[in-house]
Amino acid sequence: MTAKQGELFIDCDIHQRIKSPKQFYPYLPRVYREDIDQFGLRLTTTGGGGYLNGGAGGYRADSYPDDGTIAGSEFSLLKEQLLDSYNIEYGILGGQDVSPVSTLPDADYAAAVAAAYNDWMIEDWIEKDDRLKGLAVIALQNPKKAAEEIRRSGKHPGIVGALVQNGARFPYGQRYYDPIFEALAEMNLPFCIHIGGEGSGVNGQPTPAGYPSYYIENRQSRAMGCQAHIASMIFEGLFDRYPDLQVVFIEGGFIWLPTFLWRLDSDWKALRNQTPWVQKPPSEYVFDHIRFTSQPMEQPEPQRRLLSIFEWGKAERTLMFATDYPHWDFDSPELSLPAMPEAMRKRVMLENAREFFKLPARQLADAVAD
Amino acid sequence: MTAKQGELFIDCDIHQRIKSPKQFYPYLPRVYREDIDQFGLRLTTTGGGGYLNGGAGGYRADSYPDDGTIAGSEFSLLKEQLLDSYNIEYGILGGQDVSPVSTLPDADYAAAVAAAYNDWMIEDWIEKDDRLKGLAVIALQNPKKAAEEIRRSGKHPGIVGALVQNGARFPYGQRYYDPIFEALAEMNLPFCIHIGGEGSGVNGQPTPAGYPSYYIENRQSRAMGCQAHIASMIFEGLFDRYPDLQVVFIEGGFIWLPTFLWRLDSDWKALRNQTPWVQKPPSEYVFDHIRFTSQPMEQPEPQRRLLSIFEWGKAERTLMFATDYPHWDFDSPELSLPAMPEAMRKRVMLENAREFFKLPARQLADAVAD
Repeated sequence: MTAKQGELFIDCDIHQRIKSPKQFYPYLPRVYREDIDQFGLRLTTTGGGGYLNGGAGGYRADSYPDDGTIAGSEFSLLKEQLLDSYNIEYGILGGQDVSPVSTLPDADYAAAVAAAYNDWMIEDWIEKDDRLKGLAVIALQNPKKAAEEIRRSGKHPGIVGALVQNGARFPYGQRYYDPIFEALAEMNLPFCIHIGGEGSGVNGQPTPAGYPSYYIENRQSRAMGCQAHIASMIFEGLFDRYPDLQVVFIEGGFIWLPTFLWRLDSDWKALRNQTPWVQKPPSEYVFDHIRFTSQPMEQPEPQRRLLSIFEWGKAERTLMFATDYPHWDFDSPELSLPAMPEAMRKRVMLENAREFFKLPARQLADAVAD
Repeated sequence: MTAKQGELFIDCDIHQRIKSPKQFYPYLPRVYREDIDQFGLRLTTTGGGGYLNGGAGGYRADSYPDDGTIAGSEFSLLKEQLLDSYNIEYGILGGQDVSPVSTLPDADYAAAVAAAYNDWMIEDWIEKDDRLKGLAVIALQNPKKAAEEIRRSGKHPGIVGALVQNGARFPYGQRYYDPIFEALAEMNLPFCIHIGGEGSGVNGQPTPAGYPSYYIENRQSRAMGCQAHIASMIFEGLFDRYPDLQVVFIEGGFIWLPTFLWRLDSDWKALRNQTPWVQKPPSEYVFDHIRFTSQPMEQPEPQRRLLSIFEWGKAERTLMFATDYPHWDFDSPELSLPAMPEAMRKRVMLENAREFFKLPARQLADAVAD
C-alpha cells in the first residue's frame, strides 16, 4: 500500500522551526530586534538549559534540510516527509523555538516575541497549505496581555488553540490565569499544553527532589507537570468556572492516566470537604474536558497490557494521535499504537482531534488530491 | 474471629509521636535545648508549611490519648489499638515530628535533633516491646554526619533502617549522598524514604508547575518525588556502585509503578547511550532493589484492575503492607487490599518485609503470648 492510500488521520503535534529570529523581525518592534541582534532570543529549547536530548541534536537525522541548517525549518521538506507521505487530514503546528517564552523574565519582550512568532507561523506555514493549522503561543507573565493575543491571533481561521508549556511558575487552575480562560471562552478555542519548560528559566525545579542529572530523568518530569496541572484545574474549580473549556496535554504521555485518576478519585472521596465546589469525581472532569496526544507511546510486553490502559483511560474519548515530527522520537501512524477495536482507533487517529479542534471532515479525495 | 487469631503481618509504617521536644532534651546539647525553648523545633509536619491534612488534625480521632494532647504519643494506646488489636509480627516505627530535619537550614542542629530523636525512640518505644523496630532519622545537609549517625544508632538491634523524607534538595542517586550509602552498606541497613517534605523548608517547589493550592493536590506530588528518586538512583548508577543496597518508598503509593516502569524501560532503550553504565532495563533494578509500602491503597472499580496492577508491578516481590497508624487514612489489614492469590498475599503481608528488614520469623504462639 502507498501511504497516501493509508488511514486518514490528524497529526496533533508537528514542530515547524525558524532558521533565524530574523524571520519574524518584520512583526517585532525595533527595540527587540536590536536586543536579539546583541543577545539572541534567550530561549532554550533543551529544557533546564543544561540537558541533552535524543537523536541528532534532538531531531530525526533525515529532517535536516540539504543546506544542513535547522531540522524542520523548510516547508517543502516537511510537506514531502510528513504531509505528502501520510494521509494527513490536518496537521497541528506547535512550533519549537519560541514555545518557552513564559520562562523569560521580561513580560513585555515575551509577549512581543509570541505575537511575532504567531504572525510568522500564519504567513509562512498555515497560509501555504490548507492542511496546516496552528496553535498561537501565549506568554503567561501577563495574563491580560496573553488574553489580548488570543483575541488578536485567534481571529485567523488557521489558529485552532492557544499554546503554553507544561513547566510553569503556577499550576494552570490558579486564578491568576483567569483572563486567559475568559479569552479562550470568548474565542471558543482550547488551551493546549505542550511538554517543555520543566525546570527552565524562571520556572522552579522540575521535581520535588530538585534537578536530576540526565535528560532521561528529566523526561519523567513531563508527566509530573501534567498531573500537577490536572489536579489544579479540577480542585480550583476551573471547569466549573469555564464549563466549555477544553484542554489538551501534548507529548506528556497517556499510560500514567488511569492510575492517576484512581488516586484522584480516592483522595477526593476522602477529602472532598476541603474543596466542596468539586461536585463530581475528578475522573469525570478529565473525561469531559481533557485530552492527551499519543506520542511518545510506550510499547510494553505483552501488548494487551497497553490495550487495558487504553480501555481504562477511555482512549476512545481522551486520546489523539500525534507524530511529533521532526523529533527523533517520531511515532509512525502505522507502528506506534497497539492493536485496538476499529471504532476506538478511528476516534484516536481522527475523530477526537476533529471534535477537539473543531475541524470539518475533509473528503478523502480532497486529501489525496492535495 | 478475634483479631489476634487473624493473619500474621508486619506493619511497615507506624507513626509514634512526641508530646513535647522536652522528651528528647536528655539527648540534646544545651545550646539546642535553649534554642528550642525560645523558637520551638522549627519543623513543619503539614508539608510546605501551609497545607491542611485530612481526618482530625491529620489523625484518627480515636488515636488521641484521654488527656487530649497528641495522637500517637502514648505507647499504651498504640499497643492497645494496633499491636494488640491485630496479629502483628513486627511494627516499624517511622516517627513523625522530627522526620523533616532535612528541610532545615542549619546542618548541625538538624543532625543533633535527628540523633536525639533516635535515642528517644530506642529508649521510650523500641525497648518497651520486642515487636517494635525503628528507622533512624538522618539529616541530609551533611552526608558525612548522616553516615556517622547511621553507624552510631544503627548498632542498636532495634534499628532496621535509615529514614529520610521524599521531598529533597537533590534526588537520591546523586553522588553528594555517597557517604550515606557507604555507611548503609557497612551496617547492612536499607535506605527508607517516607513521603513528606515535598515543597517544605529548604526543599524547592513540589511540582514542575510550582506550588499547588490544596492538600489534595500536594498529595499528588508524593509519587512525583518517588519517581524522581527512582530515576536518579538507576541512571546515576547507584545500584551499580552499591550492589547490595535495598530501598523502600513508604506511603508513596504503588499503583503508578507499572506504567512508570514501562516509560523508564522505553526511554532507556532509546537513550541508553547517554548513561552507558546502566546495563539492564530500569525495571530490573527496581525489582531487585526497591520496595513499596501499600498504604494508602486505592480501590478502583472493578477490583480486578487493581489485581492486574499488582501482577504487572510484581507485588509478590515489591509490595509490603503498612497501616500508617495513627493517621486518618489508616489502612486496615483486613479491608484495604484486593483479593489476590494466597502466595502473593503472604509475601505482601509478611515475607517481603521480613526479608527487607532482615527480621527473623516469630512463632505465632510467641506473637499471641506478647
